[in-house]
Amino acid sequence: MIKLILTDLDGTLTEDRGVYKVDLEAIEAIRRAQEAGIKVALVSGNSYPVLRGLYNYLGLNGGLVAENGCVVFYGKERLEVCKRMDREILEEFRQRFKLKDSWQNEFRCCDFGFTPAVLNEEMLKWAEDRGVYVNSSGYAVHVAMKPAGKGVGVRKLIELHGVRRDEVAALGDSMTDLEMFQEVGLKVAVGNADEKLKENADVVLNLKSGKGVKEFISSLLDDGTWN
Amino acid sequence: MIKLILTDLDGTLTEDRGVYKVDLEAIEAIRRAQEAGIKVALVSGNSYPVLRGLYNYLGLNGGLVAENGCVVFYGKERLEVCKRMDREILEEFRQRFKLKDSWQNEFRCCDFGFTPAVLNEEMLKWAEDRGVYVNSSGYAVHVAMKPAGKGVGVRKLIELHGVRRDEVAALGDSMTDLEMFQEVGLKVAVGNADEKLKENADVVLNLKSGKGVKEFISSLLDDGTWN
Repeated sequence: MIKLILTDLDGTLTEDRGVYKVDLEAIEAIRRAQEAGIKVALVSGNSYPVLRGLYNYLGLNGGLVAENGCVVFYGKERLEVCKRMDREILEEFRQRFKLKDSWQNEFRCCDFGFTPAVLNEEMLKWAEDRGVYVNSSGYAVHVAMKPAGKGVGVRKLIELHGVRRDEVAALGDSMTDLEMFQEVGLKVAVGNADEKLKENADVVLNLKSGKGVKEFISSLLDDGTWN
Repeated sequence: MIKLILTDLDGTLTEDRGVYKVDLEAIEAIRRAQEAGIKVALVSGNSYPVLRGLYNYLGLNGGLVAENGCVVFYGKERLEVCKRMDREILEEFRQRFKLKDSWQNEFRCCDFGFTPAVLNEEMLKWAEDRGVYVNSSGYAVHVAMKPAGKGVGVRKLIELHGVRRDEVAALGDSMTDLEMFQEVGLKVAVGNADEKLKENADVVLNLKSGKGVKEFISSLLDDGTWN
């Protein structure tokens, strides 16, 4: 029985991958799931204020994980669950790879975003040498102190909910969602997800991004699938 | 001919006054207005990152005015159009009135929010003595250095758009929207707006909050009213 749905935002709740517009039918479906007693949480690489604003105004109730796993909010509590970013290492990353800072970086504590969202071998090697976390969501390259990644925040959020992992479903589209998948019972990839995420999913939806989210919630509520 | 719609968020795009959930039919209507060539901007007391997140993910295109008029974003430019808040005066306000800081205050430069959202005579007198701006949106009491208020930001945004004031419509529900009304040609109050705002409106909608926004856009696009 699914009691908590964790959903990624970029590429998952949006109308497609690479676009920002949220799919309104996906939001409607989420509200319907909540009315049926299932909690829904956002798990995203976005900064806390951006995600908290969306959380409030979209009307979600299951809390949120921001900064790609580093900041958790549920009820009235906001927690930082990663180390704060080392400013020297961050500056070195900036100097070396010359990526563009996300406009949200001034509102972040732990996980920083850069575009274009393309990881290369040199970046991976640099991160490994320094013991730093790097990953790409398809919207941004994320840099943080280890341990980081969505798994860290998701573990904390599930603990705050007091549910078992087999009572939790996670929806995602990109490789940053793999770390979230490892923490939950039901791993769901939208139809247009990265191939490697699909290989690690229990369910691959037919429809892309937000329409896939709607498809999943309809199966769950109306057909009783996975319950 | 209306080329730009400025809309308040809290109580206007939401399902009702005093709730946070946005009305999805209002968002759908806004997207339809934009497809018809009308630009739509958010004008709100919220902080910049909260509003910019909503702007991106709701899919708006006309820019935004955040911090109750003090921060303007359009295209790629973010501007501060008020003085930064004097930290001593802010501390004095906190000490004296013992209101609760909005969780967004750490993300603000110029206009600060407090709850409960009730202005009293003592606050008005205090503000007048110090030459400080205070107002209430019904969601928060706002405190800023003068000149502040939605009018300041709206003037700048209209200038950036290069449109005439009679080509701009503004939608609102509370007394903080009065300052926005003074800058535009078509002043529209949702059905459940403050009585005093209604008295200053050219149009009072039949329906409340987000349903009113949908009503307005339908009249504009389908009936050609006000064009």
